Amino acid sequence: MAPVDFGTDPGRYRHLRLEIDGEIARIVIETDEHGGIAPGYELKLNSYDLGVDIELHDAVQRLRFSHPEVRAVVLTSGLDKVFCAGANIRMLAQADHAWKVNFCKFTNETRNAIEEAGADSGQAYLAAVNGNAAGGGYELALACDEIIMIDDGSATVSLPEVPLLAVLPGTGGLTRLVDKRKVRKDLADVVATRSEGVRAKTALAWGLVDAIAPPSKFGATVNDRARAAAARSRRAPGGPGITLAPLHRSVEEDAIAYPHVTAGLDRSAGMVTITVHGPREAAPPDMAAAREQGGAFWPLAVTRELDDLILWLRSNETALGTWLIKTSGDAGAVLGYEALLAGAAGQDWLADEIRHFAKRTLRRLDVTSRSLFALIEPGSCFAGPLLELALACDRQFMRNGLPDGDLAPPGGPDAVQPAAIVLSPANFGALPLANGLTRLASRFSGDGDHVAGLEKHTGRPVEADEALRLGLVTFAPDELDWDDEIRIACEERASLSPDALTGMEANLRFAGPESPQTKIFGRLSAWQNWVFTRPNASGPEGALRRYGTGQAGVFDRNRA
Amino acid sequence: MAPVDFGTDPGRYRHLRLEIDGEIARIVIETDEHGGIAPGYELKLNSYDLGVDIELHDAVQRLRFSHPEVRAVVLTSGLDKVFCAGANIRMLAQADHAWKVNFCKFTNETRNAIEEAGADSGQAYLAAVNGNAAGGGYELALACDEIIMIDDGSATVSLPEVPLLAVLPGTGGLTRLVDKRKVRKDLADVVATRSEGVRAKTALAWGLVDAIAPPSKFGATVNDRARAAAARSRRAPGGPGITLAPLHRSVEEDAIAYPHVTAGLDRSAGMVTITVHGPREAAPPDMAAAREQGGAFWPLAVTRELDDLILWLRSNETALGTWLIKTSGDAGAVLGYEALLAGAAGQDWLADEIRHFAKRTLRRLDVTSRSLFALIEPGSCFAGPLLELALACDRQFMRNGLPDGDLAPPGGPDAVQPAAIVLSPANFGALPLANGLTRLASRFSGDGDHVAGLEKHTGRPVEADEALRLGLVTFAPDELDWDDEIRIACEERASLSPDALTGMEANLRFAGPESPQTKIFGRLSAWQNWVFTRPNASGPEGALRRYGTGQAGVFDRNRA
Repeated sequence: MAPVDFGTDPGRYRHLRLEIDGEIARIVIETDEHGGIAPGYELKLNSYDLGVDIELHDAVQRLRFSHPEVRAVVLTSGLDKVFCAGANIRMLAQADHAWKVNFCKFTNETRNAIEEAGADSGQAYLAAVNGNAAGGGYELALACDEIIMIDDGSATVSLPEVPLLAVLPGTGGLTRLVDKRKVRKDLADVVATRSEGVRAKTALAWGLVDAIAPPSKFGATVNDRARAAAARSRRAPGGPGITLAPLHRSVEEDAIAYPHVTAGLDRSAGMVTITVHGPREAAPPDMAAAREQGGAFWPLAVTRELDDLILWLRSNETALGTWLIKTSGDAGAVLGYEALLAGAAGQDWLADEIRHFAKRTLRRLDVTSRSLFALIEPGSCFAGPLLELALACDRQFMRNGLPDGDLAPPGGPDAVQPAAIVLSPANFGALPLANGLTRLASRFSGDGDHVAGLEKHTGRPVEADEALRLGLVTFAPDELDWDDEIRIACEERASLSPDALTGMEANLRFAGPESPQTKIFGRLSAWQNWVFTRPNASGPEGALRRYGTGQAGVFDRNRA
Repeated sequence: MAPVDFGTDPGRYRHLRLEIDGEIARIVIETDEHGGIAPGYELKLNSYDLGVDIELHDAVQRLRFSHPEVRAVVLTSGLDKVFCAGANIRMLAQADHAWKVNFCKFTNETRNAIEEAGADSGQAYLAAVNGNAAGGGYELALACDEIIMIDDGSATVSLPEVPLLAVLPGTGGLTRLVDKRKVRKDLADVVATRSEGVRAKTALAWGLVDAIAPPSKFGATVNDRARAAAARSRRAPGGPGITLAPLHRSVEEDAIAYPHVTAGLDRSAGMVTITVHGPREAAPPDMAAAREQGGAFWPLAVTRELDDLILWLRSNETALGTWLIKTSGDAGAVLGYEALLAGAAGQDWLADEIRHFAKRTLRRLDVTSRSLFALIEPGSCFAGPLLELALACDRQFMRNGLPDGDLAPPGGPDAVQPAAIVLSPANFGALPLANGLTRLASRFSGDGDHVAGLEKHTGRPVEADEALRLGLVTFAPDELDWDDEIRIACEERASLSPDALTGMEANLRFAGPESPQTKIFGRLSAWQNWVFTRPNASGPEGALRRYGTGQAGVFDRNRA
């Protein structure tokens, strides 16, 4: 199968329609049955696969950047009597374990993006459930800010995963029932074990939806609530939308390159070296000038490229288990862009959107099942928002002192300044983890005073010895040790079990409190991954594998 | 293999010594190499299996109840140069998946009990790490309130699970590093991937231990800190200790019976009916009289029996996936005992210990991988602390109205009162979930006002219609529907995949915030269960299976 490409645009959608009507947008799902991303199944009843979700992800992203006038989004179905049947079961049944896990991760990230559009961007989503919403279909509605359900005597919302497939409603369903919607756990238990689902009046009484309406009033109810949501929106003003042009991505056997992000692939070592390049020019004087640059505006362009690279590598390069993350460029220029965006926060939608996008991309890194090592070298620009990249990593290696003469990189005197990092206000609140903590607060969770003390170091270069002393890096080898130490760390990492590392990293990266988002990626996804491996679901006689064959799953009745 | 019996006493210990010296106790681990609970491995280097942990669990419990004078506990090793090598690897390698999962759950519960002894009972634990503490050995130390490590140039603390076995430090290790001890995640990453571990000075610098001492001063340092911990203890006063005599448990093919708890086993239906019997006599007038009853004092006796039954069924009856939980007796008598204990809270160690024990037993139920249905019928006594049993269940069924003549139970007029539940102060704070919420606050997490409103209903019987209206029960079928509805619910449950139910229940039962304890049972254990199923650990060429054979594990290098 061809590599998965996460880039698309409305002109190429096969499954969605994006309709804009003033401050209200509509995303209408009407899947092309024959448009599956892989062969072997038909996308009936608005069931989805990764290809459908790539379009949904694109639509959510474009509404933020290209349609700033939109202040509420109605998500609905173009089919009669059917909202969405959830993830396509035959697709799931035929998928290998890694595909299932990666598919669920991406769909979860997109649903979180939907939720954040309401919370962060003043684009609230309303699910207009105009027919049956089953499994992932109902979970998609659960990710919206409001659910309006048609009360036609037949439509149901349901989570039939447990009873029909022997897997969990793993796209946030269980968590959003009890943690977001505060549905009583005993009622949630009933919902999640009742394959036939719940009709409108009970759904409303149990808190599964926010409003119901008979067919004759459904459209008007949805429109009224959408207008009310738009009226509540606190979306910042600003100029017209930005066109998100296709990314320039070149893919070769051992390299992937975008204008601002490059990756070297070392298959024998199981490693990728990712380099994020700083801006080539100083920041424009104001957001109006930034807007004129459109998609080429460096903070937006580099985030789009990094986001795309993360998705590409996660799906298409599963054997490359260690990512080395580097930066290259001028820290002052990076901070200039940050200052521009921070100065416009809350006053300019584009500045806000770029920051929220960076936050989501960093969070995508947080849940990426790869070992992440930051390499901080002379010529790098780990400053402010780019320093967050290093802090997201499992370890930070910082080169202490200058390379000796033979190793000195070409490029004049600037290039041979010792490596330095720069703290900025971006490290103290703008880009929090999904649990609400900044990466510094999480890193030093036992010592709030230390975090407070770090603020006085903002804006100036911190070299290796000091960075080590401040706890900002893990190791700071000097020129004699650097190459060996990095090589040994990478070889050691490559020798360990990928599964054990994934489990370990998923625990260590989420110290501190949990939020619904972190619970979805932690508790829920971890259990789901386990359930996916169990013969009761995925064995030859498992319910997931047998679904649609007319044969019921055969279960080992023992509890583990 | 014989059923696992969780009952023991110091006279039968093979692996521990329990030494009492005034307000300081010592638990000295010195495992009998040939004393494994199953054949096939030797318990070298103080490695442990379930049998060792049963003794540890017993010792922790007896210190609370039988040695009220103890205010600090030193946990150490009787071996030279070795503290504890963790879970026995050959045991783990040969164990099937369900055994591994259940073993980890029990060991986690015991480590939580150690932590709670310090937090709740004024019996702080100090790990005197007098030699290498590897894997579960270091995790055991992590569960203590303080870790004092010998600095002899050779002793290390280590978590070699990931590098040597391709599994996680799953007995709380990862969580306690970053969440309890606030170790930086990058340093935790180094610790958890470095098989050779960390020596004393670095361990102290990284926050892995609290104090280090050279061999010449180690004993004195431990003693000094133990005395200081004892001096800080806020353990309530009271009379002498209670002897915890062996439980009277009778086990037959289809029934398990204790004096106050009985269980009927229906193997064809995959079900257990557990009945908790209320007190036969009214509560004694004061704690002095209660103390004279010793282990026969009803709240203590019934909790011990229920705790033992939970453990027995979890280990020995894995195919019985649904537990129906009933009570029988007089609600007023139950509340009389509660009032006695609540009135002595903070002033009498025995009253405190019984409440904390009930809390731990309820939490054991919360993490039990069985479907739990409460059946609330006429003649039951779901009042106060026993109502928590019902609230811990996944669903609550309450019989509405009286049985008709044919069904009327014998026993006089009292027995045919309609079913009723009684709220009491015990439901509003004394017995919280591991996340700190009461079960009512968790159940109605969206509606704090409702919880507050429920307080005014304390102390009076609430019958089915009202209980349904107040959201305290899930369903309230009347006499015509009761039998069918219960039968159908049980049959439906029995038809579902045990794994999917386990994953679902583990999500729905933990709505709301997470704590280190819930993260250990949620995030950490769920990931560990997944890792356990993966061929990289448990396949024929997996590292866990191959450990000790001289052959390294062979890994699928793809990340999932």
